[in-house]
Amino acid sequence: MYTVSVRDHLMVAHSFRGEVFGPAQRLHGATYVVDVEFRRAALDASGIVVDIGKAGDVLRTVLGELNFRNLDDDPAFTGQNTTTEFLARVIFDRVAGALGRGELGAGGADIESLKVTLHESHVAWAAYEGGIK
Amino acid sequence: MYTVSVRDHLMVAHSFRGEVFGPAQRLHGATYVVDVEFRRAALDASGIVVDIGKAGDVLRTVLGELNFRNLDDDPAFTGQNTTTEFLARVIFDRVAGALGRGELGAGGADIESLKVTLHESHVAWAAYEGGIK
Amino acid sequence: MYTVSVRDHLMVAHSFRGEVFGPAQRLHGATYVVDVEFRRAALDASGIVVDIGKAGDVLRTVLGELNFRNLDDDPAFTGQNTTTEFLARVIFDRVAGALGRGELGAGGADIESLKVTLHESHVAWAAYEGGIK
Amino acid sequence: MYTVSVRDHLMVAHSFRGEVFGPAQRLHGATYVVDVEFRRAALDASGIVVDIGKAGDVLRTVLGELNFRNLDDDPAFTGQNTTTEFLARVIFDRVAGALGRGELGAGGADIESLKVTLHESHVAWAAYEGGIK
Amino acid sequence: MYTVSVRDHLMVAHSFRGEVFGPAQRLHGATYVVDVEFRRAALDASGIVVDIGKAGDVLRTVLGELNFRNLDDDPAFTGQNTTTEFLARVIFDRVAGALGRGELGAGGADIESLKVTLHESHVAWAAYEGGIK
Amino acid sequence: MYTVSVRDHLMVAHSFRGEVFGPAQRLHGATYVVDVEFRRAALDASGIVVDIGKAGDVLRTVLGELNFRNLDDDPAFTGQNTTTEFLARVIFDRVAGALGRGELGAGGADIESLKVTLHESHVAWAAYEGGIK
Repeated sequence: MYTVSVRDHLMVAHSFRGEVFGPAQRLHGATYVVDVEFRRAALDASGIVVDIGKAGDVLRTVLGELNFRNLDDDPAFTGQNTTTEFLARVIFDRVAGALGRGELGAGGADIESLKVTLHESHVAWAAYEGGIK
Repeated sequence: MYTVSVRDHLMVAHSFRGEVFGPAQRLHGATYVVDVEFRRAALDASGIVVDIGKAGDVLRTVLGELNFRNLDDDPAFTGQNTTTEFLARVIFDRVAGALGRGELGAGGADIESLKVTLHESHVAWAAYEGGIK
Repeated sequence: MYTVSVRDHLMVAHSFRGEVFGPAQRLHGATYVVDVEFRRAALDASGIVVDIGKAGDVLRTVLGELNFRNLDDDPAFTGQNTTTEFLARVIFDRVAGALGRGELGAGGADIESLKVTLHESHVAWAAYEGGIK
Repeated sequence: MYTVSVRDHLMVAHSFRGEVFGPAQRLHGATYVVDVEFRRAALDASGIVVDIGKAGDVLRTVLGELNFRNLDDDPAFTGQNTTTEFLARVIFDRVAGALGRGELGAGGADIESLKVTLHESHVAWAAYEGGIK
Repeated sequence: MYTVSVRDHLMVAHSFRGEVFGPAQRLHGATYVVDVEFRRAALDASGIVVDIGKAGDVLRTVLGELNFRNLDDDPAFTGQNTTTEFLARVIFDRVAGALGRGELGAGGADIESLKVTLHESHVAWAAYEGGIK
Repeated sequence: MYTVSVRDHLMVAHSFRGEVFGPAQRLHGATYVVDVEFRRAALDASGIVVDIGKAGDVLRTVLGELNFRNLDDDPAFTGQNTTTEFLARVIFDRVAGALGRGELGAGGADIESLKVTLHESHVAWAAYEGGIK
C-alpha cells in the first residue's frame, strides 16, 4: 500500500453539550492541524499516488468552509458536538466527496481509502479512516 | 474507524541483559514520550471516542506506577528486559485493564483496540497494538 | 546564561477588530501551545534554574484563568485584540507576577528574564521576552 | 503486533517528467527524513523486535547508496520519476532485501512487514508498507 | 521584545566546492523548512507585530525565486557555496528588502530585526539574524 | 550573527538530592535530545560557520563519555545534582574544550559563542549559552 499525506490547518470556535466535556461546555476554540492521507495499492504511470498540488487545493477548500468560524452557528452541525473526532469524519466525507467529483484528477478514482487526523494540541489528536465507496 | 490519542511521558532507569544490547547492558535510562490511541467503529451519543479527561487520568495513573524508578528493581519485570517494545505492551495491558474495570466510563466498553507508542528519542520509537478482548 | 522551559496549552475563542485581520474578524478560536523560558546567570545550590514542578503549576494556573473561554467576554481585554503576540505578553506579565509573589519558591527571586512563546499552528508562533524588574 | 521504528535522512537532487509536476519538472532537490518501521507478532527471547543497532546500520547503508546524488543519473531509475512515494518503495525493497540476506541478524527472519515513510517537508510525506515474503 | 514567526519551505538542488564538504561536493539537494521571525519593541495599534498574511506572502515570494531550482545555475550565486547558513542570509536580505519597500505594510517600518532559520533535516539547521538598517 | 546547529542524543540514569526534586530523588533516567548551536559573526571562505561533519563528531564524542551510564557513579559529578541545566553546562564546557583544542578545524577559532539545549521530554527542556574565551 502506498500513501501520500498533506497537512494544513483550521482555527474555529465552538462549545460542547454534555457534562463529560467539563469546562469545554463553554464557548472556546481550537487550532486543528489537519493531515489527510491518500492510499492506493499501486502508483500511476507518473509514479504518484495523487496530484499533491490538487490534494492540497482540495484540503484548503474543504477547510475554508469551516475556517475562522464559530461552528455552533453552522447549520450543518445543529444538535451535534463538533468534537475533534467528529470533525475528522466531516473532513473525511468532504475530501471523499471531492474525490468522487473528480477534483483530484483522473488518478483520484484509484484512491482506495483515506485517513484524516486532526491534532488539537501537542498532547491530543483524533482521526477517522475508512474506505472510499 | 475513529481514534483519539493522548500523550504523556515517563522517566526511568534500567539495564538490559544480552550482547545484542551493547553499551545498553549498563545501567542507563530513558524518557519515554507515550501515546495511547483508543479506537472504535462509531462515536457515542456525545460525539466522542472516549472521555479524553478520563483517558489522560488513566494514562497518568498507569505511568505513575513506573515513573521515576529503576525498572531493574520492579518485581513485575524480574528476568525480563524492559525494552521500549516490551514497555509498550506493559502499558497496553494496564490501560486495557483500566478499560475492563470501567475506569474510562461507560463508553470505554466500546473501545475495540488500542495502540501504545513509546518514543525513546528523536530517532527511535516502538509500539504495541491489539484488540481489547 | 542558564534557561529552563516548560510547555502547556490553552484553547480559546476570540475575534479581532480591524481590516488587517481579514476572516479572523469573525469569531473563531485557537489552541496555543505555550512555552515559558526562565533565565538566570547561575544555578542555585541544588543545581537548578527554578523548581520545575512549581513552574508547571504556575503556568497551569495562569493558563487556567484563560482556558476554555471566549476572550471577547473577558473584561481584562476590553477594546483590545487578543492576538498571539498580545497574549504572549499577558502570560509573561502574569508569570512575572507569580514570581514576584514568591510562588516559584525562594529561587524565583534570581530569575532575571522570561520568554513566553505561543504556537498557534505548525506554521505560525509569537513570543514576548523581557527582564524581571 | 509489535513495531520498532528508526529514523535517518537523505539529501538528493532530481527532476520529474509530466505536466502534473509543474515547477518540479525542473532539476531541484529534497531532504527526505526516512522512518522504517519493523513489525512482528511476538518479541524474541531478548524482548526485542529487531536489533536496533543493526536496523540503523542497514538503513544507513541503504540510504548511503542514494545520498548526496542526482537521482536523474542513477541507472536504477532510468525512465522513472523518483517521487517520494516511489522512493519509499525503493527503500522498502532494499531494507527487505537486507532482511532476506540476514543482515538484521537471526531475529530478522521473524519480521512480518515493514513500513517506510519519507517526510519531504513539514507539510507533506509519503509511505509504502507491505509484507515480507 | 515581541516576535512573530512564520514558516514555509523550499526544495532546491546544488553542489558545494571544497574538500570540507565531502560527498556534498556532488550535485544533491535539500528541503529547507524556513522560519522568519519579525521583531519589534512594541505592538502597533491593532495589537500586532506585523500583518501575518503579508508576512507569509512576502516569504512565499522570496522563496519562489529559489524554489524548484538548481542553485548552481543561479547567476546571483556564482562562485559561492549556497550552504544553509549562506541561504539564511540571502533570505534575510530579501525579506529585509521587502520590508524596506513597504511590502509588509506601514507597520513593517517598525520591525527592528529579523531572524531567518533554515532546517535542512531533523538533525541540522542554520540561521542568520541581524538588525534592519 | 550566523548559527549552525546539530542534534544528537544521550540516555542516562541518575538521582537527585533535595526535597525540591520530589520523586526524582529516586534513581530514574532520561533521554536528552541535545542541540549544539555554533555562532560567529561572519562565514568563512567556504561559506560555512563550522565543518558540520566535525561538529557532529565532536558532539558524538562528548556525549559518548556520558551515554548509557549511571551519572551517580561518575566521579566528575560527585556531590552534584546532574540536572538538565547542569548537564547543558557540562556539554557546553566539553564542546568548548574541543573547540579550544582545534578539533573543529581551523574555522573553530572563529566561533564566538555556543548554546547547548537539552530536551528531556516533549514538555520540558533546558539550555546553557555563553561566549568562548
